[in-house]
Amino acid sequence: MKFARMQQQFDRLRRNRLFEAFVILVILLSAVLVGIKSYQLDERVLAAIILLDWGITLFFLLEIAIRFLGEHRKRDFFKSGWNIFDTLIVSVSLIPIQDSELALLGRLIRIFRVLRMISIIPELRILMNSLLKALPQLGYVCLLMFIIFYIYAAIGTSFFAPVNPALWGDIARSLLTLFRVMTFEDWTDVMYETMRIYPLSWLYYISFIFLTAFAFLNMIIGIVVKVIEEEQRTVQAEQQAKTGEPQPSRRQLAQQIAELRTLIERKL
Amino acid sequence: MKFARMQQQFDRLRRNRLFEAFVILVILLSAVLVGIKSYQLDERVLAAIILLDWGITLFFLLEIAIRFLGEHRKRDFFKSGWNIFDTLIVSVSLIPIQDSELALLGRLIRIFRVLRMISIIPELRILMNSLLKALPQLGYVCLLMFIIFYIYAAIGTSFFAPVNPALWGDIARSLLTLFRVMTFEDWTDVMYETMRIYPLSWLYYISFIFLTAFAFLNMIIGIVVKVIEEEQRTVQAEQQAKTGEPQPSRRQLAQQIAELRTLIERKL
Amino acid sequence: MKFARMQQQFDRLRRNRLFEAFVILVILLSAVLVGIKSYQLDERVLAAIILLDWGITLFFLLEIAIRFLGEHRKRDFFKSGWNIFDTLIVSVSLIPIQDSELALLGRLIRIFRVLRMISIIPELRILMNSLLKALPQLGYVCLLMFIIFYIYAAIGTSFFAPVNPALWGDIARSLLTLFRVMTFEDWTDVMYETMRIYPLSWLYYISFIFLTAFAFLNMIIGIVVKVIEEEQRTVQAEQQAKTGEPQPSRRQLAQQIAELRTLIERKL
Amino acid sequence: MKFARMQQQFDRLRRNRLFEAFVILVILLSAVLVGIKSYQLDERVLAAIILLDWGITLFFLLEIAIRFLGEHRKRDFFKSGWNIFDTLIVSVSLIPIQDSELALLGRLIRIFRVLRMISIIPELRILMNSLLKALPQLGYVCLLMFIIFYIYAAIGTSFFAPVNPALWGDIARSLLTLFRVMTFEDWTDVMYETMRIYPLSWLYYISFIFLTAFAFLNMIIGIVVKVIEEEQRTVQAEQQAKTGEPQPSRRQLAQQIAELRTLIERKL
Repeated sequence: MKFARMQQQFDRLRRNRLFEAFVILVILLSAVLVGIKSYQLDERVLAAIILLDWGITLFFLLEIAIRFLGEHRKRDFFKSGWNIFDTLIVSVSLIPIQDSELALLGRLIRIFRVLRMISIIPELRILMNSLLKALPQLGYVCLLMFIIFYIYAAIGTSFFAPVNPALWGDIARSLLTLFRVMTFEDWTDVMYETMRIYPLSWLYYISFIFLTAFAFLNMIIGIVVKVIEEEQRTVQAEQQAKTGEPQPSRRQLAQQIAELRTLIERKL
Repeated sequence: MKFARMQQQFDRLRRNRLFEAFVILVILLSAVLVGIKSYQLDERVLAAIILLDWGITLFFLLEIAIRFLGEHRKRDFFKSGWNIFDTLIVSVSLIPIQDSELALLGRLIRIFRVLRMISIIPELRILMNSLLKALPQLGYVCLLMFIIFYIYAAIGTSFFAPVNPALWGDIARSLLTLFRVMTFEDWTDVMYETMRIYPLSWLYYISFIFLTAFAFLNMIIGIVVKVIEEEQRTVQAEQQAKTGEPQPSRRQLAQQIAELRTLIERKL
Repeated sequence: MKFARMQQQFDRLRRNRLFEAFVILVILLSAVLVGIKSYQLDERVLAAIILLDWGITLFFLLEIAIRFLGEHRKRDFFKSGWNIFDTLIVSVSLIPIQDSELALLGRLIRIFRVLRMISIIPELRILMNSLLKALPQLGYVCLLMFIIFYIYAAIGTSFFAPVNPALWGDIARSLLTLFRVMTFEDWTDVMYETMRIYPLSWLYYISFIFLTAFAFLNMIIGIVVKVIEEEQRTVQAEQQAKTGEPQPSRRQLAQQIAELRTLIERKL
Repeated sequence: MKFARMQQQFDRLRRNRLFEAFVILVILLSAVLVGIKSYQLDERVLAAIILLDWGITLFFLLEIAIRFLGEHRKRDFFKSGWNIFDTLIVSVSLIPIQDSELALLGRLIRIFRVLRMISIIPELRILMNSLLKALPQLGYVCLLMFIIFYIYAAIGTSFFAPVNPALWGDIARSLLTLFRVMTFEDWTDVMYETMRIYPLSWLYYISFIFLTAFAFLNMIIGIVVKVIEEEQRTVQAEQQAKTGEPQPSRRQLAQQIAELRTLIERKL
């Protein structure tokens, strides 16, 4: 009995707007601390930061405990990916790290605490989910792009490796060089270098730029069309939901009128 | 009585097309003066410019006075943000500045007088309002982007600070460097430098470029969809407004026909 | 009588598909000649090119004469902007230029003969017309962009002129430098230079990039929405054209049914 | 009889999901081999790769044989462009190449085997087909772009050839330089160089950038509109297909009601 009341209170607390705002504030503070630590600091300031850091960790621990205890059915808590993510980030930052090699890892975990912002602010969570939903759509285009990249990298390595081994020495370097060409970053320097030995190699670069730009363009158009399509379906579904039952089509209306006519003709 | 007539005359004047065109001309002149002053000038030309400048300031003062006096209810004048903006810009440029340090400030205020173009030309005002309306839509995506930037900057500072302190020395520098990487501006120079010590650091850059490009893409698509959605709603609202009252749905038509049928069956 | 028959024959000729193809071929040849002349050439080849060039000019003269004579009402010929353009280009290339200074001008006119491609191929003419139609839409956004550019250029000149006079010396140079920054072309070099004296000048660049990118984004969205809107209106207009007269609305249908009901009730 | 059963078995095999997955795996392996060969390798590893390579070639031969034998009507096999493509790639890689000059060609053919990925994975085939379908749409815009490029290249060669023969020496170099300017790659270096002799040449570059950007923008909008248009037509066609026969228009419904009215009036 007493436990159920406590659970209700925790549930109310975690849904509280002020509590949410305070959690966001603490996350912001932890982000600021990460930033401050990148500057040259006084001994005393550093000590204060470490203290604050532990305070934040304890607060996060408390907060997650409240969320967990506030959950009606405990197993539901771990059904949400965001809860698991939060628990992981916080529990890992509890491990005391003294080793200097692992210290960097500990620091990185503190950085990722900023990501908790996404799990707290609902609008960001929605945005993130829509990003993740668009991911499989991009999959096949990325595969096609990679095939283009791979073939061009293999050709580039075959021909240009002796020209500049740093750029075209093996297939991994060539892939990186091609990514650079795609971002137009000093791509003419790369081209002029190979053109000195293969004067026609501009064909290689221009065709690559056209192919990737074209595939990229197609991808964007594809996504826009898919999104608009979904939008229209949602609008149609909304209209049907508004009227309760499916609307009769014009054909059904015409049939009803025709039946009315037969009725009049027969009756009179 | 006499005042009311004068107010009406001012109101007519400020709605006059020719008056508007003349104001635009004066603003253009003030913009040209700002431009001319950036060149090496003759003593006499400079004197003429200063004279012209005061003339423009006086004209703007007069113009705002006309607008104010032309307003039926004086308090309405300050309800428009553009009016407040205009008054502020003009009144500040009245303050005589002798101090050489503040002279630069006085100059800057004269530059911002060009912005009055937006408050005068209605089409620009509409454009500006639509820009401001789109701003909150961008808010959450910018926040998400900033989180991505911040985490990458923190990681970058942790690892790359010893490689090049000018680029990665603290979190502010890292954020600026990452913005540079996002604009593809000599980003490979930055990458090749860190790859000499961390050979796998290309993963850091490529993943960052993909994440920001992906978030950016999503933002654009989101805005396009939102705009198209609003467009469709406007079209529907227009159609309803055209017919005066809401159109009966097909279901209501079918019901009317059914009622007619019952009527015929019962009566005959 | 005889003249009317000749006019008809000319009209048939200029509508002939083969004649059109031949004209396109000659334009292509003139384009190729322009290209060839950019290389170091043999004396004899050069002589042949000059001969060919005159041949092309004569052919163009003939072709325009045919078009003119083929026109039923002669004044209609000069109503088309493309015809005027064609006549101008061809007639100017008739003027014999001996002066070495004007020789360059004569050459340029020969280059612009390539533009006749647009006036000949109907698909390109349609494309060009749609480009010109979109121009006024872009007008106000370009004006807004220019205001942003101008204000930033004026600020830039005020502050950065002593840092690098070549980039920020006067307002024209500053505008060019800002255009460079907008295209992300070595913009960090420009920024790092001014940051040495004004450490906060990154705010100037970042805000400028955001403002122009944002205005640009808005412009594209605006155009897309306008185009989609027009598209929908065209579709609606087509549907109305298909049925001959405007379709009755649902409200009108409901009224007709109601009238029918009154009729039945009254008659029976 | 026996052959027909065998044909059926082959047909079943080539439609088998597992068989498809295995073929994809082999293609991936062949791609990885191409990549590995770009690194410095041990003698024994190289021998193993050559052996594996022959194994892959034999497997591809077998696979295509199965596809061919599984086809009901043999001539249908060569109706698919993808089948011809597969056969060509595999059969060419069968030719034993000893000549060192042709060895490079043999290598290239092995690279193009990666393209078989597209012919195997149905989603990529669909994507590729949609890319090819969009190609003619792009044709006329590319022609217009090329005309702009050609005219600017001819002007550039006329004026700037003495400034920098490496960039503007002939029309081909000028075209390449202009492509570089369009990608914003160090375009200011090119501009500043010519501005030293022709101070107004910035007009040339800025106008070129505006024209190409504008034409490009128009192209994208054109494609988006076309795609959305097609989408709407598909949706309408689907709706008609769902109801079996075309729906009566509102006008037809109104006419039916009017006929009903005449009927009632006449009968009573």
